[in-house]
Amino acid sequence: MSISETVRMGFSKQPFMKTIGAQLASVGSGKCEIFLPFDAKLTQQHGFFHGGVISTIADNAAGFAAYSLMSKDCQPLSIEFKVSLLSVATGKPLIARAEVLKAGRKIFHIRSDVLIVEEGDEELIATALATIKSSKSVKEI
Amino acid sequence: MSISETVRMGFSKQPFMKTIGAQLASVGSGKCEIFLPFDAKLTQQHGFFHGGVISTIADNAAGFAAYSLMSKDCQPLSIEFKVSLLSVATGKPLIARAEVLKAGRKIFHIRSDVLIVEEGDEELIATALATIKSSKSVKEI
Amino acid sequence: MSISETVRMGFSKQPFMKTIGAQLASVGSGKCEIFLPFDAKLTQQHGFFHGGVISTIADNAAGFAAYSLMSKDCQPLSIEFKVSLLSVATGKPLIARAEVLKAGRKIFHIRSDVLIVEEGDEELIATALATIKSSKSVKEI
Amino acid sequence: MSISETVRMGFSKQPFMKTIGAQLASVGSGKCEIFLPFDAKLTQQHGFFHGGVISTIADNAAGFAAYSLMSKDCQPLSIEFKVSLLSVATGKPLIARAEVLKAGRKIFHIRSDVLIVEEGDEELIATALATIKSSKSVKEI
Repeated sequence: MSISETVRMGFSKQPFMKTIGAQLASVGSGKCEIFLPFDAKLTQQHGFFHGGVISTIADNAAGFAAYSLMSKDCQPLSIEFKVSLLSVATGKPLIARAEVLKAGRKIFHIRSDVLIVEEGDEELIATALATIKSSKSVKEI
Repeated sequence: MSISETVRMGFSKQPFMKTIGAQLASVGSGKCEIFLPFDAKLTQQHGFFHGGVISTIADNAAGFAAYSLMSKDCQPLSIEFKVSLLSVATGKPLIARAEVLKAGRKIFHIRSDVLIVEEGDEELIATALATIKSSKSVKEI
Repeated sequence: MSISETVRMGFSKQPFMKTIGAQLASVGSGKCEIFLPFDAKLTQQHGFFHGGVISTIADNAAGFAAYSLMSKDCQPLSIEFKVSLLSVATGKPLIARAEVLKAGRKIFHIRSDVLIVEEGDEELIATALATIKSSKSVKEI
Repeated sequence: MSISETVRMGFSKQPFMKTIGAQLASVGSGKCEIFLPFDAKLTQQHGFFHGGVISTIADNAAGFAAYSLMSKDCQPLSIEFKVSLLSVATGKPLIARAEVLKAGRKIFHIRSDVLIVEEGDEELIATALATIKSSKSVKEI
């Protein structure tokens, strides 16, 4: 399998992505984009995307960006992440765009931005830094 | 309305909490607990709670803990949070337990832990620090 | 005073910058760079720049980048920051390069990178996200 | 050497701790406290402890708390940390108090609080979460 196929298979096995309606938009070497259409079931009390949803796609794009650089017997595991929430968003789809900043032997540092993308314009609404570990087995997790 | 009623009403208006099946477990002055039963639709590729789900309830408990200390015309808005993911979890319910560490005029700092609670035993699986802003109107958000 | 002069005056009043030997390298609208020569007194047990030093210049560049956008009667106050430490560094000067991602009325979100800069080449060794508040008086702090 | 002696030796080899005047106050299994007397050279423009100084002792206490649980051929390396700055502080000494929340094989999660301690009273002024890696050699760093 190519990197892209491996990442797509991993993504397809995450039930929570189906629950929120997220799609894998693109995969590259050390890069990943997740696309999330707006849905009222993903909102907080004022109709905006819930901060937890924004964080979920930021974290997940980071994990798969790291996964694209791991050896085939390894799995990504988030050990921490931190997110700055710049603006609220509603009614339009979101893109989470992650890029590996440093790929160590076991530890990957990733930047992951969340944007509203509309007719070619982009607005940054959140930015995250994540630390992902590569694990040789689920037991090790 | 009492603090508890105000917080419960705010929580009930969040569609994303219904989507994941989270319940408001308890509210106090500067404190909030959210209860989340295990559901396969909330998992990642190995059947564990998705990191985004864990982060969502940590962040949300933080927001409502802060809300419990705000004046009645204000709303909580997460401006950032950061979470350390200590262990994976599956099959058992989670509790997010948040406590305000510092309540400023506009800015609230909150610690929010996520635990597996089973027959009186607790295991810490994640811990977060969140910064919540009180906003006078949705427009200000 | 121009923005640049205001920021330079603020920087010059920070005794800790003198203690570590940091210099204000450049100031722009929503941007700031701090230059830090290597000095053995800034190291940890293996001769690398101490993580606290790297974090200090990242945070401080963030604060002054935000300050450059504040009204004249306001002061910057760090309310939180988070830093991913990608690589160790020694023997060469560092640059902290900060840029405001979102300037709210009271709250500023800033990205701040720390790099080794040598003969035109740059290596990213740390990246931070900071949240800075504008305060009208020291008492408010 | 006992754990305490190993940690004390590691601490004594950090020039930056001498530069800021920090002392190792106590060491236990998975725990560490650092004491920092007030000094005007550690301040920002209004005479308060610089946020970078507060972060430095929080991060360093975390590193040594983790070090106390590592095998003798390993060294602690901070891979990331995040700090919420609750209050400013001046004129009185600070204590950074760190405790390991989870000790993995390679990765340690630590909570680290910074307090003003005076005549038995404590005031929390900052709290941090750090991720520390154990490294077998400096080269691996």
